[in-house]
Amino acid sequence: MRSNQITIKDIARILGISASTVSRALKNHPDISIETKNAVNDLAEKLKYQPNAVALSLKNSRSNTIGVIIPEIVHYFFSSVISGIEDVASQNGYTVIICQSNESYEREVENTKALLSHRVDGILVSISKNTTDFTHLTDIQESGIPLVFFDRVANGIEADQVIIDDLEASYRATRHLIESGCKRIAHFAGPLNLLIGQHRLDGYLKALEEARIPVDKSLIIEADSFEKAHNAILELIEFRNLPDGIFAVNDLTAIGAMQTLQKKGIKIPDQVSIVGFSDGRFSGITDPTLTSVDQHGYEMGTTAAEMLMEHIFKSPENRTPEIKILQADLIVRGSSVKK
Amino acid sequence: MRSNQITIKDIARILGISASTVSRALKNHPDISIETKNAVNDLAEKLKYQPNAVALSLKNSRSNTIGVIIPEIVHYFFSSVISGIEDVASQNGYTVIICQSNESYEREVENTKALLSHRVDGILVSISKNTTDFTHLTDIQESGIPLVFFDRVANGIEADQVIIDDLEASYRATRHLIESGCKRIAHFAGPLNLLIGQHRLDGYLKALEEARIPVDKSLIIEADSFEKAHNAILELIEFRNLPDGIFAVNDLTAIGAMQTLQKKGIKIPDQVSIVGFSDGRFSGITDPTLTSVDQHGYEMGTTAAEMLMEHIFKSPENRTPEIKILQADLIVRGSSVKK
Repeated sequence: MRSNQITIKDIARILGISASTVSRALKNHPDISIETKNAVNDLAEKLKYQPNAVALSLKNSRSNTIGVIIPEIVHYFFSSVISGIEDVASQNGYTVIICQSNESYEREVENTKALLSHRVDGILVSISKNTTDFTHLTDIQESGIPLVFFDRVANGIEADQVIIDDLEASYRATRHLIESGCKRIAHFAGPLNLLIGQHRLDGYLKALEEARIPVDKSLIIEADSFEKAHNAILELIEFRNLPDGIFAVNDLTAIGAMQTLQKKGIKIPDQVSIVGFSDGRFSGITDPTLTSVDQHGYEMGTTAAEMLMEHIFKSPENRTPEIKILQADLIVRGSSVKK
Repeated sequence: MRSNQITIKDIARILGISASTVSRALKNHPDISIETKNAVNDLAEKLKYQPNAVALSLKNSRSNTIGVIIPEIVHYFFSSVISGIEDVASQNGYTVIICQSNESYEREVENTKALLSHRVDGILVSISKNTTDFTHLTDIQESGIPLVFFDRVANGIEADQVIIDDLEASYRATRHLIESGCKRIAHFAGPLNLLIGQHRLDGYLKALEEARIPVDKSLIIEADSFEKAHNAILELIEFRNLPDGIFAVNDLTAIGAMQTLQKKGIKIPDQVSIVGFSDGRFSGITDPTLTSVDQHGYEMGTTAAEMLMEHIFKSPENRTPEIKILQADLIVRGSSVKK
């Protein structure tokens, strides 16, 4: 395998041209002349130069470590994903190191640099809410390091990804409320500039449309926290516009709505049924317990880690990027089942 | 600074003795003769050998990364600690990589190896429940890598540590119940083979003793989960042994007790006052809200990271290990304040 150690610099030295010219010639860059491209390619072939020498040399000196970049570990969903990743990594003799972007683009870039300089064998990323420039992520791929996205993906980068079918899950959550007899269903929505907020709203709308329930815009409210749900409920009561069902974009919002309703003497689920999303640690400890969508964080972690391991153990040429879409399950509990 | 590169092996070669003899001679080990010690020390001085050459050489090629080994990131407390660590690290131009032991001694050892082989500049550790052999931790120190323990420390290792005064916090939590008028106070305790369970019980006992309330053993119950609290309450009701106050070892236990009491028609705090421990995400969303002990995870993180940074930037000889004990605060809420 010594031939793998031929580098772009060797070719540049022999031909008396710059390394960046060699690099661009190998990539068939339009700025480079046909003559130069032919010379570079001929020599590369003779010397058995491997375009992904970096990746191969890294593979030959594996660190047996994979890196994970995650927005916020405080979320139960993300910590479940990490458990799944760690179990698969451990089965393969790998150690996982985790970096938290804390929803900051700058930290995500720093995290990426740190993982690359520590020569991890592969990287799993869920991008921060504020990441719109993806250069640091394409840098990972250009370094020859396998990359898999999970949950929050960078649109437009060709890489493996594992995601949840948010629209379908929200559709089923809303349909469940309709089937339980609700006629006026509110949606407490997330920020609609985020894909996640948009998909969950779309699922809600799809279920209403299918059941021929007209959309009442006064029942679609941007409220994605405990406090915002509290205020939204007070307002709905004040304007005598109370729904008989609420589908909330996350569990804490659902719980905020539930408690405010209960304090006002409104019975859950008899007068208002409630469904949350993401089935965190809270759903089992409320009274009544909360119907919610289980996003299968652990399964997302094992799936993403298995894709990464496959990518590490096979050479990158032999595989095309895959997208795996996991189905989320609705877990029906007390908050939506009328006695 | 080339003189830093003189190693123990150089001295051993020149004197014709083994490296381990040189190492022990430099440490003034009793097994080594005075003559050998003198020869080694003389040569070391002439060659300007630095005992901590490893540490210095690592410092000269800093990775600007620190590693954290944490039992379980799913706990709100630990994720708060990480936020504190990351903020201090970021201010110092450092990136944090996190490894989760998942309460497994074996994974903790693997994590340690991974962080050492990635040449992090310092390591922060909170040990797993199952760690009783500390060799991997002394290995860190012997590699010349600064080490700081937080929350769960390895007894007997001389290193910086940041801990919470658990006994004092539990004493204050119990005293608060006494001052609110409770006469029969139960303690829902953690496993008593763990220091944390023992300290919290001791704090409870100290408060009772001070108030001359006799200890009723039937009111000290090993119950440290939502389900165990539920069962414990049912049993107390069945045996007509209900207390008028409960100090629980953690918040989920307190919430389990509260909900079971409420389902049986018992009013909180009018009939039973409840205090939890660790002030996680749940305490604000229960009804009534839960009185609990705030362990200041974020502050623990910043304190530990600052100690580590000081250790990284100063050479180890110039400092002696420090123990910082943080005071936890009781946050009084609805579950213990009679109207």
